[in-house]
Amino acid sequence: MSTASSPYARITDLLSNISNFNVIDTTLREGEQFANAFFSTEQKLKIAKALDDFGVEYIELTSPVASEQSREDNEKICQLGLKCKKLAHIRCHMDDAKVGVETSVDGLSVVIGTSSYLRKFSHGKSMETIYQVAEEVVTFIKSKGKEVRFSSEDSFRSDLVDLLKLYRHVDKLGVNRVGVADTVGCAHPRQVYELIRTLRGVVNCDIECHFHNDTGCAVANAYCALEAGATHIDTCILGIGERNGITPLGGFTARMYVADKAYVTDKYNLHMLRDIENMVADFVEIQIPFNNYITGYCAFTHKAGIHAKAIINNPTTYEILRPEDFGMTRYVSIGHRLTGWNAVKSRCEQLDLHLTDAEIKEITRKIKELADIKPLGIEEVDSLLRVYHTYIESSNYENMTAAANAAGDEIKQKASN
Amino acid sequence: MSTASSPYARITDLLSNISNFNVIDTTLREGEQFANAFFSTEQKLKIAKALDDFGVEYIELTSPVASEQSREDNEKICQLGLKCKKLAHIRCHMDDAKVGVETSVDGLSVVIGTSSYLRKFSHGKSMETIYQVAEEVVTFIKSKGKEVRFSSEDSFRSDLVDLLKLYRHVDKLGVNRVGVADTVGCAHPRQVYELIRTLRGVVNCDIECHFHNDTGCAVANAYCALEAGATHIDTCILGIGERNGITPLGGFTARMYVADKAYVTDKYNLHMLRDIENMVADFVEIQIPFNNYITGYCAFTHKAGIHAKAIINNPTTYEILRPEDFGMTRYVSIGHRLTGWNAVKSRCEQLDLHLTDAEIKEITRKIKELADIKPLGIEEVDSLLRVYHTYIESSNYENMTAAANAAGDEIKQKASN
Repeated sequence: MSTASSPYARITDLLSNISNFNVIDTTLREGEQFANAFFSTEQKLKIAKALDDFGVEYIELTSPVASEQSREDNEKICQLGLKCKKLAHIRCHMDDAKVGVETSVDGLSVVIGTSSYLRKFSHGKSMETIYQVAEEVVTFIKSKGKEVRFSSEDSFRSDLVDLLKLYRHVDKLGVNRVGVADTVGCAHPRQVYELIRTLRGVVNCDIECHFHNDTGCAVANAYCALEAGATHIDTCILGIGERNGITPLGGFTARMYVADKAYVTDKYNLHMLRDIENMVADFVEIQIPFNNYITGYCAFTHKAGIHAKAIINNPTTYEILRPEDFGMTRYVSIGHRLTGWNAVKSRCEQLDLHLTDAEIKEITRKIKELADIKPLGIEEVDSLLRVYHTYIESSNYENMTAAANAAGDEIKQKASN
Repeated sequence: MSTASSPYARITDLLSNISNFNVIDTTLREGEQFANAFFSTEQKLKIAKALDDFGVEYIELTSPVASEQSREDNEKICQLGLKCKKLAHIRCHMDDAKVGVETSVDGLSVVIGTSSYLRKFSHGKSMETIYQVAEEVVTFIKSKGKEVRFSSEDSFRSDLVDLLKLYRHVDKLGVNRVGVADTVGCAHPRQVYELIRTLRGVVNCDIECHFHNDTGCAVANAYCALEAGATHIDTCILGIGERNGITPLGGFTARMYVADKAYVTDKYNLHMLRDIENMVADFVEIQIPFNNYITGYCAFTHKAGIHAKAIINNPTTYEILRPEDFGMTRYVSIGHRLTGWNAVKSRCEQLDLHLTDAEIKEITRKIKELADIKPLGIEEVDSLLRVYHTYIESSNYENMTAAANAAGDEIKQKASN
């Protein structure tokens, strides 16, 4: 088909990384902070392997300082021989760094709170002290040959000048990445774009972003961060994390698939998404949300008559994601009062029932009438269509309205038995 | 507390409506297109009343043309004497308009597909035909004294010039609002901002926006649309709608509360949110998602040690939403391997157990050790703290480590009985 020329087509922006990014999945760190998450060693190994098979570039693990078991589990994960890099999260403190460098991870993700809130109510340190501690910790980790990421916490409620000064300082010390974290979930897309664009001009290293979802912007903020020049995005399977969590791997994948389908489908094993989500949902004892991105049970269900008609003609009319690319299937729902005759016609074709358009319109009227009382399951609709088709063929009824009414009566009779 | 001056503070933008917007809740139209939604008359009346009590400015209802029952139900809703305005959704067609103007709603929400996809695979009309039909339908509805909204469908895959020409045309005919709809869920925040900012310069009427959530941007897009000058946002309770739905009322409320708390808390009855969501979840037979905005069961649960410590000192450190404003409560989880001694100290204070910081650090070590094997419930933690406190008071153990170990053994013993 010919697509109209659209001024919305992406204009090439040399700083945008929407076609060039890395995923740091932190289900085994942020995800472990989810209220219901208490991963056993075996579960952690399964999650790490699955993420590696899916194709994420990095996985982040809980601090080895958190508990003895955490440290041991990290070692076991590092011995799996995964393709992805392994990172461990630590506080910006020499005690933690000393333990971290002795473990087998590829890198350490250092974090310190920089907002006035966290400086006052969490660690109590001044910005001057933060600069000093950051220097000591970063230099030490680098001297041990590990990759190092230095992140502020609650970045969007930190003073911009303080923040840029700190990032430039650690950039000059040679960190691999600086991290920007919306720890409380307050950031919104254009604010994210502005901060990351500014930061892009201040540091030479990579930029990692971490977005909580308290106010519904975690996926959108990740997208805008990449547009502005961020290079790494933190995700969790199903978005699990502190409170209501962070950018979900599935939702982020959906967003980036729409931005650059070839890049995303080449890079990640999208057919695995549903199994990975089911596994983690099982481990943390939650239901997959009804409205989950891509794998939610209604993500590819079409219902309204006008939608159903167009979807049958060409799925791209109402689908921006091809269900097949994710190992999913489309479902067009027809047994309800919002149905349309085109959807019913499509079902007749699937059932190999030959009816004229006029005949189909008549039985559609009957479906709407019946569904006004109680929605019909697909078996009931199929049964109704078959009975109607038989009646039409038999010519025992004076017209199609009579045949449709008789078929409807028969179905109602059956349902009440 | 003193907050650092921040360059992120919102700069007044005269076109921004983040402190001046209307909600059009469409649970009774878009929501009815959700796969599981088959509302009875009684359920529709309950939803309409609840939304009115919550304080939404408009509710949108299913087309009276969809079925006879739909038409009758709309009449019943209009007879409830609600404060909010009632709208009915119709296709841009004189047949629908003629039925619509005879019903009791305050206005009609007219829609037509404008993307090349929908023009080819749905209604088959050219843009010229769309201009003509739009003029006829809009003029007719206005002549009957009803409010009229004219919306394109799939706006973000429509040709920009076609779209602006159409909107200017209906604006001059005197529509109350033009509608922009991301029908397939492909739009992203900065694209939304650009389109709405452009449109704001082209039409004088209000601007309504409707965002699907297939790629996780429905809340963020709504926010950016308001920043750009949109006036009305479509929502659904729990976001239910076609596929995985649209901007959820709860998520949108969370976003706007953070943008302008006083405006949102004055305007809407936020304490009702949980009950409304539970009611609708019950009607459509779904679970509230574990990660639902505001009302999800872990939205205010804090787990990591460093988070718990700060939250206890000052909740705003890690909370951008005050749970009390939504009739919710905060929960700090402590019986797990990521716990910290400040969280344990806070619990001791709640239980009125007097222990020194050193003693608390020792029992925290024990909690982490036990939780490495199996997470502890709050009753187990409380029991452990009480036993430990008794042992410390009794002075029967040579030091606090011995007391903590003995208390741990006693709790393990109890659990295995």
